[in-house]
Order: sequence, then structure tokens, then C-alpha cells
Amino acid sequence: MRNLTEENLTDIVLQKINSDDPRSQEILTKLVKHLHAFIKDLEPTEEEWFKAIDFLTRTGQKCDDKRQEFILLSDVLGVSMLVDAINHRTQQDATETTVTGPFHAPAMNMEMGDNIARGKEVETGEPALFRGKILDPEGKPLKGATIDVWQSNDDGFYDIQDSSQPEMNLRGIFTTDESGEFWFKSIKPSPYPVPTDGPVGEVLRASGRHPMRPAHIHFWIEAEGYQTLITHIFVEGDEYLDSDAVFGVKESLILDFPLNESKEDMDKYGFKSSFYDVEYDFKLVKK
Amino acid sequence: MRNLTEENLTDIVLQKINSDDPRSQEILTKLVKHLHAFIKDLEPTEEEWFKAIDFLTRTGQKCDDKRQEFILLSDVLGVSMLVDAINHRTQQDATETTVTGPFHAPAMNMEMGDNIARGKEVETGEPALFRGKILDPEGKPLKGATIDVWQSNDDGFYDIQDSSQPEMNLRGIFTTDESGEFWFKSIKPSPYPVPTDGPVGEVLRASGRHPMRPAHIHFWIEAEGYQTLITHIFVEGDEYLDSDAVFGVKESLILDFPLNESKEDMDKYGFKSSFYDVEYDFKLVKK
Repeated sequence: MRNLTEENLTDIVLQKINSDDPRSQEILTKLVKHLHAFIKDLEPTEEEWFKAIDFLTRTGQKCDDKRQEFILLSDVLGVSMLVDAINHRTQQDATETTVTGPFHAPAMNMEMGDNIARGKEVETGEPALFRGKILDPEGKPLKGATIDVWQSNDDGFYDIQDSSQPEMNLRGIFTTDESGEFWFKSIKPSPYPVPTDGPVGEVLRASGRHPMRPAHIHFWIEAEGYQTLITHIFVEGDEYLDSDAVFGVKESLILDFPLNESKEDMDKYGFKSSFYDVEYDFKLVKK
Repeated sequence: MRNLTEENLTDIVLQKINSDDPRSQEILTKLVKHLHAFIKDLEPTEEEWFKAIDFLTRTGQKCDDKRQEFILLSDVLGVSMLVDAINHRTQQDATETTVTGPFHAPAMNMEMGDNIARGKEVETGEPALFRGKILDPEGKPLKGATIDVWQSNDDGFYDIQDSSQPEMNLRGIFTTDESGEFWFKSIKPSPYPVPTDGPVGEVLRASGRHPMRPAHIHFWIEAEGYQTLITHIFVEGDEYLDSDAVFGVKESLILDFPLNESKEDMDKYGFKSSFYDVEYDFKLVKK
């Protein structure tokens, strides 16, 4: 193992991988093969290599308990959606999945009908009701399903990006009863830019890409015996539906947000004015 | 850009890259192509993707002003030596290059003959003299070349890993006069493990690889009008020459360390006992 060259180096590194675990062996082998193929194809200068080291270092150091810059990098490079597509091939008519994104965070357990909006957006945002059912593949309601929802405020910021919001604002966890039904109050989501003040912003600018995501609300649904469903609901008509910075849009997840002006429904759900009434049934896949 | 699938996602991400700069366009395009090819080949589970995000994050967060875990990762995966090989193809009979490694740090300017060892290794280490010339491609001595050297102590630790050592221990920067000659005192280097208490240690353990590097001393040589030369000198006979954890060994850089027992030379160079007398002429390449 002396006198390594461009020709023999990859094979010699591969020969050194002797894992006890077959999957680790496969991961490490494919990592080295593709990484070396990338380097041989690109032929980086030493200065470019130093810049890459620095970029990766700064990306790691931008992460903290409220920010995950490596997830955001994976998102804007289309890697997250590729992993998502690979892992959800046999969905049939189940609800489609999309990226988790970097903004999931702990939330409070809530009662059906609660308002997840607890900041100034209660006044400034446009009120919305989200309701529907959690169903099994045959359309049977699922009891005890947990629905973890999160969204940004009307200015496009999540609570963990914005210290002016109450803690755990615009987040909540709901649990279904035997009806499988859920309903909660919030505001209509707004489009927003992914954070561009870190290394991922450099990638977007270097690519000539905008950082915008179309308006959406996140759902993370779990039910015993079923595959975890991580998805969004998007707003029909949003100007960024065809240029999402993280490639997350799927046609089946774009919903109309019809305005409900019924006085009876306002009273029933506790709205002071008309509200967007968004109904969607989530269909899970058996494990 | 809706309904992205395994089949169309890579092309859609590639279409979004519109850089003003041709090299940035090439880097981003090849990055996305190879990264997506890796994901498609490996088909990671979502749990494996989360582990990869966590691994990269921890690697970035392990870095500080004294530790560079991403350089170490590049080193143990053979990437650093591959970049080195690609960037030094036309060396002819110039001194061969090898990895910088993660342990370069600022050092003091010194006078020829100074001892870079200033810790307990002055007593416990085996004294060594390093001497030779800095030459141009025709063998002409180079004046004003700076020679930045660094090595670990006899326990295998660099000063920046070991708070018991004096600051800037076993480092020094020397500048040649018109003779092109250099000479300085130190100790014979020892083999040592690369740090395994961070994410890179996980990669080595998962690969069933040892973390050892054969004994060596680093040289970073600069002279106006010449390419920077970053290299090591290795010790002939070291047990790790054929299994260097970072793949850095080149035959031409392995030197005998003959013992000089001449009383006259001990007096001349300021040794109290016999010493390893290591002579090597470095040949630089024109820019």
C-alpha cells in the first residue's frame, strides 16, 4: 500500500473495508466508489477541496437545537425527495409523502378544535380550519393515530426561527378517537424563503435559484401497525408550486382552500368570522 | 415541477442550476449527478438518511480551531490523496506530495539549527537532525524558501491535541539563504493513531480498520515562483508503512534514519549524544 496513484487508489481504499455487518459494508463501499468517481470526474483544485472542507464544516456548525442546515442542504439538492421517493414506492392510493424539512420541533398535545396559532397571527392571519380523517388502506377510521402538525406564521417564519412568537407556536399534536376524525384551527399558510443566511444560501445563490417554498402545512402521522406518514398540504394557486426550493410538491397534496361563510359553522368551530375550510382524509399504509 | 419521481427528479434538479460562473455550474452539476447516483445505488432507508445527516452534523461540530474532522474524514476515505494525485501529475523528478492532514497550525519563525522540540520529549525522545536543500527543477539552490515543519511527540500527539506540551511545540518555520540549505534539530517521529473519539473513529471501526499512521514529519515548503510543496518524510522500517490510515505513503518519501555517532558532528549541531542524521533535498516545481 505504497505509491498510491489515481489508477489504484480507489481499489486500495475499497479493499480496506472489512465490516462485520453486510449493510455497513455496502454503505461504505458505495460511498467510497461514488465519492471517488465524483472527485475523478470533477478534478477539484486543492483550493476547491479546501473550500469544500470549509463549506461542510460551516454547514455542521450552523446546526443547533433549532436549525438543521444539513437537512436543508439535502432538501435543496433534491436528495431528501429522492430518499422519500425510494422509500415510498408502493403507496397505491395512500396519501403521498414529502420532505420533513428542517423545522420539525417538539409540540404540545392538544384537544380537537384547539387553535395552534397563539401569536399575533391570530389577529393578522387568515383563519383556517383543517379537518378530515385518518384512514387505513380500506378506508376504515384509525383510532389512536397521532397527528403532529407544524407551519410558519403569516410572515413566513416558524416559531423556532422567530423569538417574537410564543414557544411551540403553530404546532400541535392531536390524537384521534374511534371516529378517526381530526379538526383544529390555525391560519392559512404563507409562502416563505428557506433560510439563506447560512451555507445553503450560498448554494442557492451560486445556482441562480430563489429560496421560496409554496405555502404549506406539515403533517407527521403515526398509528400503530402503519407506516409513518410525513407530508404537507399545499395551497392551490400559490405562485411557487412549480418552483419549490426543496422539490416537495405533489399534485395530490395541493388543496383548494374554500372560504366557509356559514354562521352555523363559525359558531360550531369557534370562529369570529368566515374561515378557510380545508378538508382532507389521510390514508396510511400498513407496515 | 410537480410530481417528482425517482425517474425525473435528478434531471429537474439539474435544470435548476443556472450559474453565472462556468466552474460553479460544473461543480454543482457534477455534485448533484454523483450524489443522486449514490442515493439511487444505495437506496438508503429514511433511518439511514437521518443517521447520515446526524453523522455530517457531528463531524462539523467536532471541528474547532485545533481540530478539523472533515479533513480527517477526507483523509481516511482516500479523498485527500486522490485530490493530491490529480493536482500533482507532472512532477517528473520533483519531490512527491502527500496529504496535509488535520494537524497543521501556526508556528514560530526559527533560525537554522534550532530545536523544534521544546517539551519533555527533549529528554524522552530520540534526537534527530533534519538537513538538506531546497532546490529548483535543475538542482539550483533556492534562496528565501520557507520550510514549515510539524510533527507529533514521542507519545504520538501533536501539541494541539495535548495541553501538556508547550504551545507551538514540535513546529517551526525556517527560511533558506542563498545556499538553499536547511538544518534543524528535533526527535525521531513515532507512529500514532489518528483521533478516533469523533465521527471518523466510527468510520474506521465500521470498516474494521486500524487508525495508525506510520511515523513521519510534515513539510510545507513555499518559494516564490514555485508550486507549494506539502509532503512528509517517513521512517524506513515502520510497521505501518503498508497500512497508513490515510493512504499517504509514497516510496520516495521513506528515508533511512542512520545514527550519527561522530563527536565532531555532535558538537557542530549541538547534540549531547549520538543522533539520527536525516538528509533530504526537496525539489520544487515551477508554477
